Amino acid sequence: MANPVPRSALAALKLAAGSGNWSDDAAVLAPRLVDWRGKFHGASPLLLLPRDTATTAAIVRAAAEHGVPLVPQGGNTGLVGGGIPPADASAVLVSMARMDRIRAIDPAGLVLTAEAGVILENVHNAAREVDCEFPLSLGAKGSATIGGLVSTNAGGVQVLRHGTMRALVAGIEAVLPDGQVLHQLTGLAKDNSGYDIKQLLIGGEGTLGIVTAAALRLVPAPAFRAIGWAGVPGPQAALALLARLRRASGGQVESFELIPDIGLQLVLRHLPGHRAPLGGRHPWHVLVELAGPASLDALLADCLADAAAAGDVVDAVVAASVAQAAALWRIREELPEAERREGPAVHHDIAVPVAAMPGFTLAATARVETEFPGARVIAFGHLGDGNLHFNVRAREGETDPRWIGDRAAAISALVHDLVTAAGGSISAEHGIGVLKRAELARLGDPAKLSAIRAIKAALDPQGLMNPGKMI
Amino acid sequence: MANPVPRSALAALKLAAGSGNWSDDAAVLAPRLVDWRGKFHGASPLLLLPRDTATTAAIVRAAAEHGVPLVPQGGNTGLVGGGIPPADASAVLVSMARMDRIRAIDPAGLVLTAEAGVILENVHNAAREVDCEFPLSLGAKGSATIGGLVSTNAGGVQVLRHGTMRALVAGIEAVLPDGQVLHQLTGLAKDNSGYDIKQLLIGGEGTLGIVTAAALRLVPAPAFRAIGWAGVPGPQAALALLARLRRASGGQVESFELIPDIGLQLVLRHLPGHRAPLGGRHPWHVLVELAGPASLDALLADCLADAAAAGDVVDAVVAASVAQAAALWRIREELPEAERREGPAVHHDIAVPVAAMPGFTLAATARVETEFPGARVIAFGHLGDGNLHFNVRAREGETDPRWIGDRAAAISALVHDLVTAAGGSISAEHGIGVLKRAELARLGDPAKLSAIRAIKAALDPQGLMNPGKMI
Repeated sequence: MANPVPRSALAALKLAAGSGNWSDDAAVLAPRLVDWRGKFHGASPLLLLPRDTATTAAIVRAAAEHGVPLVPQGGNTGLVGGGIPPADASAVLVSMARMDRIRAIDPAGLVLTAEAGVILENVHNAAREVDCEFPLSLGAKGSATIGGLVSTNAGGVQVLRHGTMRALVAGIEAVLPDGQVLHQLTGLAKDNSGYDIKQLLIGGEGTLGIVTAAALRLVPAPAFRAIGWAGVPGPQAALALLARLRRASGGQVESFELIPDIGLQLVLRHLPGHRAPLGGRHPWHVLVELAGPASLDALLADCLADAAAAGDVVDAVVAASVAQAAALWRIREELPEAERREGPAVHHDIAVPVAAMPGFTLAATARVETEFPGARVIAFGHLGDGNLHFNVRAREGETDPRWIGDRAAAISALVHDLVTAAGGSISAEHGIGVLKRAELARLGDPAKLSAIRAIKAALDPQGLMNPGKMI
Repeated sequence: MANPVPRSALAALKLAAGSGNWSDDAAVLAPRLVDWRGKFHGASPLLLLPRDTATTAAIVRAAAEHGVPLVPQGGNTGLVGGGIPPADASAVLVSMARMDRIRAIDPAGLVLTAEAGVILENVHNAAREVDCEFPLSLGAKGSATIGGLVSTNAGGVQVLRHGTMRALVAGIEAVLPDGQVLHQLTGLAKDNSGYDIKQLLIGGEGTLGIVTAAALRLVPAPAFRAIGWAGVPGPQAALALLARLRRASGGQVESFELIPDIGLQLVLRHLPGHRAPLGGRHPWHVLVELAGPASLDALLADCLADAAAAGDVVDAVVAASVAQAAALWRIREELPEAERREGPAVHHDIAVPVAAMPGFTLAATARVETEFPGARVIAFGHLGDGNLHFNVRAREGETDPRWIGDRAAAISALVHDLVTAAGGSISAEHGIGVLKRAELARLGDPAKLSAIRAIKAALDPQGLMNPGKMI
């Protein structure tokens, strides 16, 4: 196949990156051309590895001059194919992995400034060294990088209290499609001087430029954590428990995860070293974590007792040790793996308004299981954020992946229709990328879609930044 | 003067607004053509008063069709002329005052949905009725409306804990310049489906469309408040006290205001009913408020004692009653009025990175007082946000407003230069409007400015939305 990127353009890009900062070795490129789950496969003639912002800007300017599309890539932990280049080798890959410096930590101002290639876990460690915390974490923390987390507006298990990346990004530095550097890194809490352009780069999936650094908000590390597990009659009772905890704790509820009994049973069935946190069986479970400067165990126990008296909790336990707390969290963290071992499923990362979530969960489950007889829904996730991982599994005992595969598109269309009708989002956390591009075009708010297209055309008139993603 | 808006266009706009929803009576228009401080004067042939979103959209479509500029106006409490039409009567005024319904309150989901014309105080009251709080307040709360607060990304005294409007707006509904309605009102905590367009309307100063409603985040009403006043050696010590309080309280510091002694002295001199909170004189003062579900008085007293032992506090008091707390707050709230009575001044609403703020405050004060002998700086405000009201007063005893008036432009240019050099913002809270348009063009980040201009041209190609403001 002829290389769609002209040789002269590749030469210009290599020159812009500088000696030692590029590779066209197929073996070096290969692991970056497929996502970690093996679902998206791309091709590219060249990998660029800039070490600083000026080089990144030079690369973008050269690409603009020669009309070469660029695909920025972080830790390659995405779930929607957003960081994988097109399969026709028409784009050049730009890995931000070598921009991996933590530029500054300001414990008094509670701001840490990290380059795009810094791995999330290294941010956690750096914050901990000054007795602070960067309150965003997710399963891929050992690989995911700041640039990717910003560009996808990542979430995780602490969003309830601290928000998504959008709330935690005090400033960014980025190279815009014309090669200009956006200098908005000073981390001002207040700045009303024109449109807040950085908000477009946050969650922009690399389609409006390349994030090179971010100023991240820290919080003082909480001295105490209280972790509990409750068996509840249903999602509505869980929501009532959440409201009770929020009010009693003054906003110190850090996580509130809803898990159906089928989820707990899959963990117990497929993975070693787990035991049921409570004695009896309960239709739904809640894992809750509070964090603050003083012990919250008694407050959590009191709230659970009061909720039990109100009928919102059937049975509950407060972790008495760090080990017990870790065991409770491990059930939630390993639920996706237990699900995988059970067999194939269609995954959905959706959000609905919090108040509508209990009703939606029950109604959507019933609708899917009726329209696709045998299919089993496992809906779990971040109740307080209105964010569910709404997964639809093959019928019990089915091992042929085609059973679910043949139905996947129809199931997803139904789930996304129901979500849209409920005023929700077809992508709560993971973004659009390649995976949900058609669904966004089908179901997105028309006014929002036309504004998105107008902005993309205005800032990236050649359409060179991460082509084929999102829009 | 010939009316610059053609009669046929005015007729079309009246038709779009509907009978009873417009006025061309000069007496009705007059109070809306000047800001409350009397600094900006405009003219307009027509006032439109839509009662709902569909009518607002019809107005915008008619304006687009006939090429008529529109100026949206809320409570007319702005400080930068953003809601006043141009003086040449070339634009039509659109007041959102009649869209004043609170559409929904969801205490479990902690979201309140209000139309653009709802007055802030009415949102406070509605939230309180369900034992919640909308944690944004400012002096103009009895007049300022939600649409204006969103469009200017308003701040206030609780930003430290809860953020500006941007952090408190979970969703918006708005009419875009082409007349399409942006439906993003469901208040999702997580939604990664394309660029977050609403972020451009927040703080967009009406230049990208008209906000018609917003979904606002509530918090459970805190049961206890602790208010204290401390005399401190300087801004650096104040910052150390803030860090101590934040850590000890687990993020329950709601306000932290820095006041120089000259500010306190002006209040005592010009306004009745005040007394100095502490016995001795101190160069700087701090007013602090904590809020939470349990009493925080002891925690505040302990922190102040520990800070005194560390040399960061010289003397301090914790309010023992609601009346005493109110008296302390009144000093801060009436400081601007005391300043006005002292005589004319040049005002600046600036922000610098928090960690840089103590050094900036002292250095910028010295620089201004050196370059303009006799001028006196009063810098006070929201230390934890890095946001200062940096006001420069005429020399002691000077009553002729020309003394400061002749120097105002040069003083502001110097202050803005110093702020820009420190990585700060020339408009922390108030916005750009007409007042700071030239300074933004002079000092703004070039990449940001070109992105702003490209987005404005893309979404409002005729330049009809709030012309002459911001850009």
